[in-house]
Amino acid sequence: MKISPLTFDSSSTEPLYAQLFHYLKELIIDNNLTLGEKLPPIRSFAKELGVNNVTVINAYKQLEVSGYVTSKQGSGFYVSKRTNTQSSATLPAVQNGKELIDFASASPHPGIFPTETFKQYLVEVIDRDKGFAFGYQESNGFAPLRDVLAKFLETTYNTYTTPDLIQIVSGAQQGIDIIAKSLLHAGDTVITENPTYNGAIEAFKSRGCRIVPVKLNSDGINLIELEKKVKVCKPKIVYVMPKYQNPTTICYSKETLLGLLALAHEYNFFILEEDSMYELCYGIQSTPNLKALDKDDRVIYLKSFSKLLMPGLRMGFLIIPRTLLADFTKTKQTTDISSSGLMQRALELYFTKGKWHEHIHYMQEIYRGKYEYMLSKLEPLTAYGLQFKKPEGGLSFWLRLPPHISSENLYEACYEAGLLILPSPIFFSHLDHLKDRYVRLSFAACSIDDIQKGVEVLASCLRKLSSNL
Amino acid sequence: MKISPLTFDSSSTEPLYAQLFHYLKELIIDNNLTLGEKLPPIRSFAKELGVNNVTVINAYKQLEVSGYVTSKQGSGFYVSKRTNTQSSATLPAVQNGKELIDFASASPHPGIFPTETFKQYLVEVIDRDKGFAFGYQESNGFAPLRDVLAKFLETTYNTYTTPDLIQIVSGAQQGIDIIAKSLLHAGDTVITENPTYNGAIEAFKSRGCRIVPVKLNSDGINLIELEKKVKVCKPKIVYVMPKYQNPTTICYSKETLLGLLALAHEYNFFILEEDSMYELCYGIQSTPNLKALDKDDRVIYLKSFSKLLMPGLRMGFLIIPRTLLADFTKTKQTTDISSSGLMQRALELYFTKGKWHEHIHYMQEIYRGKYEYMLSKLEPLTAYGLQFKKPEGGLSFWLRLPPHISSENLYEACYEAGLLILPSPIFFSHLDHLKDRYVRLSFAACSIDDIQKGVEVLASCLRKLSSNL
Repeated sequence: MKISPLTFDSSSTEPLYAQLFHYLKELIIDNNLTLGEKLPPIRSFAKELGVNNVTVINAYKQLEVSGYVTSKQGSGFYVSKRTNTQSSATLPAVQNGKELIDFASASPHPGIFPTETFKQYLVEVIDRDKGFAFGYQESNGFAPLRDVLAKFLETTYNTYTTPDLIQIVSGAQQGIDIIAKSLLHAGDTVITENPTYNGAIEAFKSRGCRIVPVKLNSDGINLIELEKKVKVCKPKIVYVMPKYQNPTTICYSKETLLGLLALAHEYNFFILEEDSMYELCYGIQSTPNLKALDKDDRVIYLKSFSKLLMPGLRMGFLIIPRTLLADFTKTKQTTDISSSGLMQRALELYFTKGKWHEHIHYMQEIYRGKYEYMLSKLEPLTAYGLQFKKPEGGLSFWLRLPPHISSENLYEACYEAGLLILPSPIFFSHLDHLKDRYVRLSFAACSIDDIQKGVEVLASCLRKLSSNL
Repeated sequence: MKISPLTFDSSSTEPLYAQLFHYLKELIIDNNLTLGEKLPPIRSFAKELGVNNVTVINAYKQLEVSGYVTSKQGSGFYVSKRTNTQSSATLPAVQNGKELIDFASASPHPGIFPTETFKQYLVEVIDRDKGFAFGYQESNGFAPLRDVLAKFLETTYNTYTTPDLIQIVSGAQQGIDIIAKSLLHAGDTVITENPTYNGAIEAFKSRGCRIVPVKLNSDGINLIELEKKVKVCKPKIVYVMPKYQNPTTICYSKETLLGLLALAHEYNFFILEEDSMYELCYGIQSTPNLKALDKDDRVIYLKSFSKLLMPGLRMGFLIIPRTLLADFTKTKQTTDISSSGLMQRALELYFTKGKWHEHIHYMQEIYRGKYEYMLSKLEPLTAYGLQFKKPEGGLSFWLRLPPHISSENLYEACYEAGLLILPSPIFFSHLDHLKDRYVRLSFAACSIDDIQKGVEVLASCLRKLSSNL
């Protein structure tokens, strides 16, 4: 069918690609686009509509993630029978027998994973390396992957390192676990941002450490409070997420990064920088990562491929300060000998063949679209007393609640109404007067449709809780 | 070419399949069997020679592992150009520019991995589950895999458990690490066999534990010494490997297993049973595993697929006592969130399609052949004062050295001559008058050729060290 002309509503808060997505979705639901029918080719359709190619790609991809179309490699997008894209073994959370909309998970939806490409590369690796692809791997990681990562760090992040300082790990959580086991003993102190990622707190506590929280300003960790606490507690590690901090979405300024490095030098501690979100910038990438500024080899750099590529790879890496290298390699060996050699080889091909940059560009567009859409839907909710700072990147929003509503209450009301959100207490390791005052909403796992419905649920819960006063 | 009749030497210590292997190898080296030529079909050739099919299969497989032939699925074995079967990234240990013969590694040679089958299953899983194969997995493991393992434990080992008590781990080392993190804190005591696996010692020490060794009798841990030490030290865990203990190759009697369980009940400790070798029995499987006798839910059972299948899967599992279940699942989450969902799904297919039993039968035959061959070559070395007990299973021999030769000296002499062996000190956690009196020789990674050459090197080093006196 020839798709009739669509007029975009330029006054709408809805991004162009979301408007196109909704328009095409209705056509499919109303059977104006029928099963098996091919969607118009991207370039010519974009030209016809007077929009960028990316707008059309994004709309098509959203239709794919939502199960309305399937893509055939090299051929295009076709209207498909809408099926539950979840396999039986990975059913989504349900409540009263119906699927919950998931604003809690910050993991990408499996529909956008580069599954076919990885399948090809896995086969290519096995055909090439045969049984050796399934043998033990060196504990520090597959050498060609470490080589390619060192080059990638230099060209993409201006972060200079050598392959021997790179340690492959099975995801960020294992990275933190290995750092904890290598450096921390009972009674040691770790300073964290407050609030912070609870999985890291658990790993530090498992070593018998004391956790000391330091508050965050809008441009990063509060350096004055940090210095005071460093003097008293003499931490081994200060753990930070300078880009789109989890959960607050704060982005560090260059001044704060330099101030942090100066304190590390003066008071002799290591900084653990988790940098899994660097690429997910929706504005201007204004500050480098901390490791790029680290002249003193004080930063243990940690990056996971779970959010940008696929969590099931169980892949990430560390850059280790040279003085700590021997300890880390031994700890990785004691932890699980090595990460999967097969996955490391497939990932090496992924980088070598230039797929990483291609994929990141695609992920940025997908996420930017969802980010802008959610932002447009959340902005009117400030009428209920919600406050938030527009994040510069990442996968979440961090909303401060009006004084009369606690995050636990809102969580429960949303859950009853079919929406999963994350209440703030899990991100605070200590009692804090703000502990129950926030919720984190992520758009990573949701389709545009889910975002729309989810924010409606949130709005109605806020109304209800406000009227109960 | 028609292969001329071969007369087996029935008086030789060399097993029939090794004789056939050497015979065919010579034909290939002398170009009597030429590049691309097909070896005779297994059944008719076995009939012609008057031997079992398995003898011919074993000889062909040894030729394949040694790089003289390649197999084409469903077609047969063909003489191949001999290439280095190692990929550049997994070069073997070298010394003075030449490859070392490796009696140190107890890992199977990658040439015998079921690589093609796994490739098919990986593709099948990705085509079936798409992105969900690369999503996060439940921390305790992929439910259908846990189901199939529970059935497998019941039918194969008479070990009854339920899927909810099975925890998937990324190999045995991670299993030990998770057990250590779940149960042990600074100052706790762990009792181990003496000697034992050093990777376990490292994981226990990383928790700040005290290691208390107990000596081994020929039928398992010395229960009298164990009880004495248990009374004083009150251990949290007693760590044992009842089947073909590493490194001593000792197999526990049923009486010792029952005695150990009785002590666990009386003195309230948990037993960690590592059982990765159960299937590799070359005699009669006379005793059950410890978990099968555990009426009291005291045994934490650990099994890895690294030795029986492929180490690169990074797969193994625990059976967890019900009282400990919540702690373990949380620890796994804090350790690395979950093991690879893709590998778990492929492994589930491997079991469901009945490939496991087929493969184990094949591995038993391969290993039995190498075991018998190495045994026949080692027996004459008792003339140099070497002593060893014939193991009932496993992948290694544990040789007691004559009084005038230390394991470190023998290790160095062998290394200089191109052979890698494991000297005993790494298996002892404490000073012991026997600490330097043994070497461990494994045949897992070696071809028949390597075993022959390696034992010749060993003999010449023993001669040299004896004559130096």
